[in-house]
Amino acid sequence: MALNIVLIEPEIPNNTGNIGRLSLAAGAHLHLVKPFGFELTDKRVKRAGLDYWQHLSLTIYENQASFFEQNGDKPMAFLSSKGTKDHWSIDYEDNMFLVFGKESVGLSSEITEKYTDRLFKIPMHSEHIRSLNLANAVSIVVYEGLRRLK
Amino acid sequence: MALNIVLIEPEIPNNTGNIGRLSLAAGAHLHLVKPFGFELTDKRVKRAGLDYWQHLSLTIYENQASFFEQNGDKPMAFLSSKGTKDHWSIDYEDNMFLVFGKESVGLSSEITEKYTDRLFKIPMHSEHIRSLNLANAVSIVVYEGLRRLK
Repeated sequence: MALNIVLIEPEIPNNTGNIGRLSLAAGAHLHLVKPFGFELTDKRVKRAGLDYWQHLSLTIYENQASFFEQNGDKPMAFLSSKGTKDHWSIDYEDNMFLVFGKESVGLSSEITEKYTDRLFKIPMHSEHIRSLNLANAVSIVVYEGLRRLK
Repeated sequence: MALNIVLIEPEIPNNTGNIGRLSLAAGAHLHLVKPFGFELTDKRVKRAGLDYWQHLSLTIYENQASFFEQNGDKPMAFLSSKGTKDHWSIDYEDNMFLVFGKESVGLSSEITEKYTDRLFKIPMHSEHIRSLNLANAVSIVVYEGLRRLK
């Protein structure tokens, strides 16, 4: 069993680095969709990912169209603060794609409107919080998937 | 129901900032044990914690002795890569303290040897990985607690 982590247009190098480290720990495949807000060679990506980056199972896409062309038929769950169901209700399955948007604005309305039925949010207990750090959100959703699939 | 997040001698300001944000999202109380590897006024703490920091439920301790004096009788789980049981087997309970060590070396051997029976690790699927980013690890363990206690 394995999971796929998808970051659409990530902006902050430390987050992508930390998610690389998490992907390896979780035995997950990482998919990164351009444009990025940094160069993948940025030392902050590698520093956050430590010396593990080279071992990563990684696919890079030139744009969203290319990602959906190649993977559109795969089981997917989309994570967004606009989701109405919580992430604990994701129907995890082997090879599932867990799709996350960019740090500043999350997934585009094009995606959230198209996939309304597969849109999930991480529940939050404070009205002062709009979202979690991206790497933290990915960690929560991926490890819940590992628990469910083990 | 509520959980307590304890960071013993955290070193990296962005991690503590992100964990502050997570604490608020999770409705958890944050306990920070000195010495820190940064000043709490460091702009990187606030930036990672966004504008939420002021709403945080926070206790600061001058040292580990002071923390254990005040809380030694509370239910606790200690997170460490030296743990033999995985974090899914934590017996979460209301007001539980989830205790994490510093980024560079984790919990001290003084603690891991004293609390062997309450030492848990997050399972990892790669021999290339020694640990997760601290904020990611906290996120995984705290949201599993919320799931169990809800």
